[in-house]
Amino acid sequence: MKKIKIKVPATIANLVCGFDILGMAIHEPYDEMELKLLDSPEIIIRHEDHFGLPEEPSKNVAGVVLQNIIEHLKLTKGFEVTIRKHIKPGSGLGSSAASAAGAAFGANALLGNILSREEMVHFAMFGEELASGVRHADNIAPCIYGGITLVKSSSPIDIIPLSTPNLFVAAVHPQVEVKTSDARQILKKNILLKDAVEQWGNIAGLVTGILKNDIPLIGRSLNDRIIEPVRSILIPKFDEIKTRSLEAGALGGGISGSGPSIFMLAEKKETAEKIAQLMKSIYDEIKIESFVYVSKINPSGIEIVEEDHDDNQ
Amino acid sequence: MKKIKIKVPATIANLVCGFDILGMAIHEPYDEMELKLLDSPEIIIRHEDHFGLPEEPSKNVAGVVLQNIIEHLKLTKGFEVTIRKHIKPGSGLGSSAASAAGAAFGANALLGNILSREEMVHFAMFGEELASGVRHADNIAPCIYGGITLVKSSSPIDIIPLSTPNLFVAAVHPQVEVKTSDARQILKKNILLKDAVEQWGNIAGLVTGILKNDIPLIGRSLNDRIIEPVRSILIPKFDEIKTRSLEAGALGGGISGSGPSIFMLAEKKETAEKIAQLMKSIYDEIKIESFVYVSKINPSGIEIVEEDHDDNQ
Repeated sequence: MKKIKIKVPATIANLVCGFDILGMAIHEPYDEMELKLLDSPEIIIRHEDHFGLPEEPSKNVAGVVLQNIIEHLKLTKGFEVTIRKHIKPGSGLGSSAASAAGAAFGANALLGNILSREEMVHFAMFGEELASGVRHADNIAPCIYGGITLVKSSSPIDIIPLSTPNLFVAAVHPQVEVKTSDARQILKKNILLKDAVEQWGNIAGLVTGILKNDIPLIGRSLNDRIIEPVRSILIPKFDEIKTRSLEAGALGGGISGSGPSIFMLAEKKETAEKIAQLMKSIYDEIKIESFVYVSKINPSGIEIVEEDHDDNQ
Repeated sequence: MKKIKIKVPATIANLVCGFDILGMAIHEPYDEMELKLLDSPEIIIRHEDHFGLPEEPSKNVAGVVLQNIIEHLKLTKGFEVTIRKHIKPGSGLGSSAASAAGAAFGANALLGNILSREEMVHFAMFGEELASGVRHADNIAPCIYGGITLVKSSSPIDIIPLSTPNLFVAAVHPQVEVKTSDARQILKKNILLKDAVEQWGNIAGLVTGILKNDIPLIGRSLNDRIIEPVRSILIPKFDEIKTRSLEAGALGGGISGSGPSIFMLAEKKETAEKIAQLMKSIYDEIKIESFVYVSKINPSGIEIVEEDHDDNQ
């Protein structure tokens, strides 16, 4: 294959109680990426968007992923990448993970599918490391596998695809800055054992609810006593949005990744749309610009839009 | 119904990484209990075993469960209970939970099944409180529900039955004393967030493995960085037993409840039997008497052996 166009979806990490281990892919927003195979081991990155991200490969999330692939596989080929990013950097919706996972997925397709999904995750994690300083896979895994994924361990990589409950997601991205590194630093290094026990009861309940498609169990497991009380301080109106979303029929929800985006799950599309409008109106009231997204959980992750094979050239 | 005879199985709480939330029923050992309905609200407890447990209802695990049932339901009936205990008190194999769950289960049957399973758990927890000072349900739940259960929360009671993987259990009970209350007190009140994250990855992996019947995933999720390193100090030869059991083909295992019993899971009966012999020989070498048990995971929990209905009298 010479060229591939892909849609790379936003992802929501943590899923409230599953800090650093759970994540899910959604349909909206998504990035568009086009990758071409080059005849020499060089990397060209072009951003056709307005976020001002660096295009120098060593400073670009997709670039470092491709550099690592070229080096580790001792390739004599290279990649030219065009990115039209719609997942806003710093939104907490897996923007850097999308660039990283898209680069690994696209390169793998161009190379004839020589990598396993675990290997794609392995290479994509170099992009997350560049973006946030941490080699985490909780956004990358659902982007590559689709649906809801469990990162049982990121070293060694042990990803367990769970399933895709038939639920809708409302997400709001308020235009305030929360850096992943700050959101990580404010967390306490020590937690109470009794809080941890409550948390793992919720995690076990959430995983069971997802696998058994037990929607009420999913709802009553979406509690986080450890991370949310600390991180939500960085997000204006978090408590009001959560309370009013639950009143409006949300199953549950919380911070998307390290924020500032907030997501809620709902059984019906109309409920999710109502919640999205509610979220937006709360930020409108305090003059914070916000973007809202409504979609189903995305069962398949990255999607191939167009492929140009050698024999079509 | 006037009289019921039941077999009440041993249970293994925690299942390595699921401290205070997971438990499973096994077939061996088990207690035998016989309950008769009396015409006045009195309680008679008789132990036909040699453990010297108090028979005064307010000091007896089954007794306090029945007292609470009589009081809360304002019964004009009472219960006469005969217990032949084979699950040794202090073994960590759910001996007090068996008496408590058996009392609640038997009373419910005699009263015409007026209680839900959650309500039986609720009443049985008064017995655990008497025995250990803590109203925990991680042994009671699998005793009543069978198989492997998740205690998502014990207040309010939220029990999720998982499933019963087709696995064998080898357990050893060395004759050393570890009090549940001591085993609880030596735990640290604070734990590292990073250890907690690793633990909840293992819990999510274990629950997924159980529900998907993914045996290798069950095996690689049976790790505990938080409780086992502290509690295993109280159990002679713990590390050697674990290491050699794994070498002999165990999937994984650890401390049963708060110890001193140790359990291991295996795919084949012969492997479980080999591990049981190995466990016993290790304690024989250091002149500690031990009892070993091999059985499958028990899918149904308490079993009715005999019922005498009014019309049979």
